[in-house]
Amino acid sequence: MSKKPSLVKGTRDFGPKVMLRRKHILNTIENVYKKYGFLPIETPAMEQLETLTGKYGDEGDQLLFKILNSGDFASGVNAEMLNPSNKVQLLNEISEKGLRYDLTVPLARFVSMNRNDIAFPFKRYQMQPVWRADRPQKGRYREFWQCDADVLGSDSLMNEADLLNIASEVFDLLGPKISIQINNRKILEAIAEKFNLQQHFKSFVILIDKLDKVDFDSLVPEFGNLGLNDAQMSELKELLVSFSFEEASIQTILSHLQGFEKAQIGCNELLELHGYCTQTGIIDKVSINLSLARGLDYYTGCIIEIKATDVKMGSISGGGRYDDLTGVFGFEGVSGVGISFGIDRIYDVMEELKMFEDNLFSEVKAVFCHFDAAGRKQNYQLANKLRQEGISCEVYPDIKKIAKQFEYSDKKGIPMVLMTGETEINTGTISFKNLQTKEQGSIPILQLAEFLNSSIN
Amino acid sequence: MSKKPSLVKGTRDFGPKVMLRRKHILNTIENVYKKYGFLPIETPAMEQLETLTGKYGDEGDQLLFKILNSGDFASGVNAEMLNPSNKVQLLNEISEKGLRYDLTVPLARFVSMNRNDIAFPFKRYQMQPVWRADRPQKGRYREFWQCDADVLGSDSLMNEADLLNIASEVFDLLGPKISIQINNRKILEAIAEKFNLQQHFKSFVILIDKLDKVDFDSLVPEFGNLGLNDAQMSELKELLVSFSFEEASIQTILSHLQGFEKAQIGCNELLELHGYCTQTGIIDKVSINLSLARGLDYYTGCIIEIKATDVKMGSISGGGRYDDLTGVFGFEGVSGVGISFGIDRIYDVMEELKMFEDNLFSEVKAVFCHFDAAGRKQNYQLANKLRQEGISCEVYPDIKKIAKQFEYSDKKGIPMVLMTGETEINTGTISFKNLQTKEQGSIPILQLAEFLNSSIN
Repeated sequence: MSKKPSLVKGTRDFGPKVMLRRKHILNTIENVYKKYGFLPIETPAMEQLETLTGKYGDEGDQLLFKILNSGDFASGVNAEMLNPSNKVQLLNEISEKGLRYDLTVPLARFVSMNRNDIAFPFKRYQMQPVWRADRPQKGRYREFWQCDADVLGSDSLMNEADLLNIASEVFDLLGPKISIQINNRKILEAIAEKFNLQQHFKSFVILIDKLDKVDFDSLVPEFGNLGLNDAQMSELKELLVSFSFEEASIQTILSHLQGFEKAQIGCNELLELHGYCTQTGIIDKVSINLSLARGLDYYTGCIIEIKATDVKMGSISGGGRYDDLTGVFGFEGVSGVGISFGIDRIYDVMEELKMFEDNLFSEVKAVFCHFDAAGRKQNYQLANKLRQEGISCEVYPDIKKIAKQFEYSDKKGIPMVLMTGETEINTGTISFKNLQTKEQGSIPILQLAEFLNSSIN
Repeated sequence: MSKKPSLVKGTRDFGPKVMLRRKHILNTIENVYKKYGFLPIETPAMEQLETLTGKYGDEGDQLLFKILNSGDFASGVNAEMLNPSNKVQLLNEISEKGLRYDLTVPLARFVSMNRNDIAFPFKRYQMQPVWRADRPQKGRYREFWQCDADVLGSDSLMNEADLLNIASEVFDLLGPKISIQINNRKILEAIAEKFNLQQHFKSFVILIDKLDKVDFDSLVPEFGNLGLNDAQMSELKELLVSFSFEEASIQTILSHLQGFEKAQIGCNELLELHGYCTQTGIIDKVSINLSLARGLDYYTGCIIEIKATDVKMGSISGGGRYDDLTGVFGFEGVSGVGISFGIDRIYDVMEELKMFEDNLFSEVKAVFCHFDAAGRKQNYQLANKLRQEGISCEVYPDIKKIAKQFEYSDKKGIPMVLMTGETEINTGTISFKNLQTKEQGSIPILQLAEFLNSSIN
């Protein structure tokens, strides 16, 4: 009768070991967010389809998970709607809800709906799963977590500086060395103006985004197709490199773009940001990269991307400034800037760099073992005393062979086992064995808490 | 163009204030779970429909949220399937995934699929949202959180004792006074045998479950319909009361059920549990209630229900033992026992009892305010120093009227504002004002960290 169960394609279970590591990452990010005055919100997994549709482009609309209406969902469907050309009509008839695709559109909806209760600038963080009906592949899942922090309703570049600082601090705490690349959409637009590419801005940007993976020379034919001559390409090549984040670099960039107002504005923003970053001392981690354009349709000012320096992996965090995020929901003129951490990739980076400490596996200090009911009873008493002192521990609940009990402790990643037998009860002691170091011995039960607090694990 | 956005019916946004309170509840439960050796797992929001269907009864199947297949979901649908009598066929054609309805079936699936990697007894906790297409009403939502802990693969009643202890400790930490009622399915079955109600067991149990809300006498006609005479009803009435959790009560119950083996077994279990609870000292919070039968189709041994004593509200936590939870997925003979906390109801109870401390609203210690860019720059320096010492704070990012900055701090629930102007910069000081107590003054910037750490907030 029973069938072998399976997971939905592209989704994952997280067992205890993975969970404790993921929680370590999430808690670290959350604590840093809190330190900078960000407050948490959560939004529902399900949104109205009309809230989601049209916000992520045609491709995004295809990738939305849609939820079948409850009850007699098909009562309004007629045979004509089954015609493939009437797919949208059929969809509207049977589904009006979808699963959250990111945390940004729900944020915009939340802020629009609660604008009168919110203290602006609104600094919120949100850490929740999102769902996309993408083709699953290595490192790409249909359910994954986003961990975003955004500031809405402030133009100040101090916010950008705070976000860069947050990223720096998060990775200092987690371990992986990072490089932070920044750019400014306004400078990108000035470059396009300078080379008369305003009409081809989108193609231009898609092209320079590729410089992340290939060198400039291999793109020469394509730049040629956009109408650039050799001299122009040579100047463009000088611009599309990584600059150290210092005033001289900004002057160099500006000298290439004299007379373009947007370049002046963008470079002034970089200068102001540079001032803040000098104060916090993270200048050395940051570089300016004019070929960085991620999410171009979206960002309007500063663009941020973060990579791990010691692992070949895409960006592990990114963000930027966007104007008028909430306009689509009728709340105009709210500028925002945000950052997002990619938990899955950060996990993979940390695993590759062997940065998860073993004791992340379990916070349980010890497993109490016993040979009979009398030993178990004594253990239960001792365990609950320890718990009253805040020490995490457990008593093996059944009467089984001691080897079985040790195996349990070992498999759960708890090196310290404690044993109570007749001798121990009679002498007010408890025996211990560290399954890792093989150290063993016996101590008075009155010293147990102290012993466990001072022992490694 | 823009439309007023709305939430999906029966779902909720959680803003910062509510989130911080919910997190307080969730963190408290999680920390206690951890102290007893439970480890976290998480499962995907989406499960195969075949994993979910048939596990929650016909009504439950109706309440599952189903997800439309991606891509050309309707390509296999023909006009005949639109006939209401072919609804199941149509559903199978267009949907193969559903949203998680509880955390118990996903647990059973997880354990069945990972049985070779798991250290048994498997003590796991899981805190995630679940979704039900229920009719929304006060206190009932279509998305809500469950916070479960279960032990799988151990028969020991020490597990039941641990769960009772956990509940006791959680509510000690949170605040609400509770009463814990317990029962045992085996005793319920013995009662049914004694009164020849084995054939009507389900109706009998539905009836006695009502004693939670109405008194015995009002149910006399219905017990009569089940075939009970006056003498039987009179004895039944003596049994279906709340007994203090002591050995004498268990003897009384047994004396009513002499000769019924299941009563002997059930009462022995109560006695053993009583022994553990005596050790942990929670006896006084526990009572035996033979009319408690919640989730009867499910529980096979101990049944647990917890209520707040000072608020009229249904159960705020409950659980029990179930045999063979994983059998339906082909993994036989695994006994389990679990407990679940109802976060939404606990929240309501705590709100009604005014148990949320105000400082739960924000962990941010202070907002830095300023009159101009020079003050802001100085503030940014000071704020980042504080953060390096682990103090959460923020700088108002824009140059605006000081009243506006105070209003922000106040609205965000941060009483302490710090001000830097020309005088402060020249004298190495910072001015402060506590918006709650109206206390104000000025301190050397070198004493700022100490000042904030010692000030209330």
